[in-house]
Amino acid sequence: MGTAVLVMIDHPSASHPGAPAHRLVPAGSAQLPVTDVAVTRGDGIFETAAVRDGVVQSAERHLTRLAHSAAMLELPVPDLQVYREAIAEAVGALADSSDAFVKYTLSRGDEENPKGPIGWVYADVSPDHEDERTEGLPVVLLSRGYALDIAQTAPWLLQGAKTLSYAVNKSVLREAKKRGAADVVFTTTDGYLLEGPTSSLVLRLGDTLVTTRPESGILAGTTQEDVFAFAAELGLRSEVRDVRVEELAAADAAWLMSSVRLAVPINAVDGVPKAFDAALTEQINTRLIARRA
Amino acid sequence: MGTAVLVMIDHPSASHPGAPAHRLVPAGSAQLPVTDVAVTRGDGIFETAAVRDGVVQSAERHLTRLAHSAAMLELPVPDLQVYREAIAEAVGALADSSDAFVKYTLSRGDEENPKGPIGWVYADVSPDHEDERTEGLPVVLLSRGYALDIAQTAPWLLQGAKTLSYAVNKSVLREAKKRGAADVVFTTTDGYLLEGPTSSLVLRLGDTLVTTRPESGILAGTTQEDVFAFAAELGLRSEVRDVRVEELAAADAAWLMSSVRLAVPINAVDGVPKAFDAALTEQINTRLIARRA
Repeated sequence: MGTAVLVMIDHPSASHPGAPAHRLVPAGSAQLPVTDVAVTRGDGIFETAAVRDGVVQSAERHLTRLAHSAAMLELPVPDLQVYREAIAEAVGALADSSDAFVKYTLSRGDEENPKGPIGWVYADVSPDHEDERTEGLPVVLLSRGYALDIAQTAPWLLQGAKTLSYAVNKSVLREAKKRGAADVVFTTTDGYLLEGPTSSLVLRLGDTLVTTRPESGILAGTTQEDVFAFAAELGLRSEVRDVRVEELAAADAAWLMSSVRLAVPINAVDGVPKAFDAALTEQINTRLIARRA
Repeated sequence: MGTAVLVMIDHPSASHPGAPAHRLVPAGSAQLPVTDVAVTRGDGIFETAAVRDGVVQSAERHLTRLAHSAAMLELPVPDLQVYREAIAEAVGALADSSDAFVKYTLSRGDEENPKGPIGWVYADVSPDHEDERTEGLPVVLLSRGYALDIAQTAPWLLQGAKTLSYAVNKSVLREAKKRGAADVVFTTTDGYLLEGPTSSLVLRLGDTLVTTRPESGILAGTTQEDVFAFAAELGLRSEVRDVRVEELAAADAAWLMSSVRLAVPINAVDGVPKAFDAALTEQINTRLIARRA
């Protein structure tokens, strides 16, 4: 690699007069003890945002979601201004920030030698996702094992927080590959669509874009929210509601949307080819790439 | 602290002639890059075993479970002999191994600079759990959000693997504290008892010890298995089966069992005091402490 940069945040949740809150270090260097709870328990949270021409896209939506995840895990409240500055330091240190990403994290810290929470910002040039955006991806539907009301009935399961406990999100991608697909749409036990393991699901039904309510225990999608905010400019309405599994097959088009990969059309579901809307996909992605906030 | 030791395992899944497989390093030192998937995704597995008088208790059951978890996550097959040797090095480096623990891990490794899997063994003296063993702990019942057949219907959810994605296991302990309890028994959406977040649940119903089947997506309990293996010596029978929620209230006694804390009696469920069997608890723990394999 060699293009990545790393900024460690020593004081992510409160200002420490006299001590710098963050510092640039070699990206591949050993930074964490094995007793940090990010390692031992996946007990931390993260965000990944795209960077275009040195500007973090949807920057404030991501910071808002970080604060929301922190509240769900009862982590110390992150100092968002410290994160803004650490992110700016990381982006500024990239040799090429024309098409890059930043991934930033908040961990509860070392469980054996408690010194408070820590954070970091990792940045690098983005992988090329152009093929997926133009050709689409085949997905499989996999049960998330929960009912649609899980976030209300069992909030301790942390559905809707973007945590470091992502082993399941990796496992379902392996299951998808075994089934000849490249990505996953999670379903509930009572017949609703949720999200992808690293993306939001958006359907087009006629002239309306539809996505699942965040109250169903999915992540509020920063990219989906941006798309819904400019939907009217594309001549489309938008709805955030419960979405039945059958609606995916009935939809005129469907996408997985995420910060770095952007809007990727779904071109097959469980092995059944699905038509996709190439023109609208290009419109959406052109608009997403052009964001400068 | 100052009593902890750490052995890094550079080659946890295959022998590397000429390269030592493991090495002792300072326990609190930074060892992991922020891009190790143990950090970024909780995409690794672990075991925690007790050490008495320098001997790892239930050592082979733990190694067998590590291999089982690795298979569920499709991790590289761990070289158990390398783990045995690294564990022996860690235990040998403890200043006092009369009452200690070893926690060992296998990670898929660095996702940005792939160099294969890594592992480590962390060891330290055990905290004192005598009060919990003699006085018991209050628990609350919390839904795990899944039905009893989850491991069969959705194996990609990794229920039954001991992964580093343990944010939920920490979250439920916070929920328990809010409810005035100290630990948790997970339940299914269809009315069955599962396990604690870091322990197995065992009931005594008359002269029979009862625990939930591992096929229900719970961990095979190493301590519970040892107790069931010597149950006959205590004049008890044992059963591994589906266990209804109502059976906890009806049980003559109940315990959470785990490697380091051993058998801890449940003294209240959802705020309702529960009688416990102090004599049998002491018999079980005396027998568990005496294990020398």
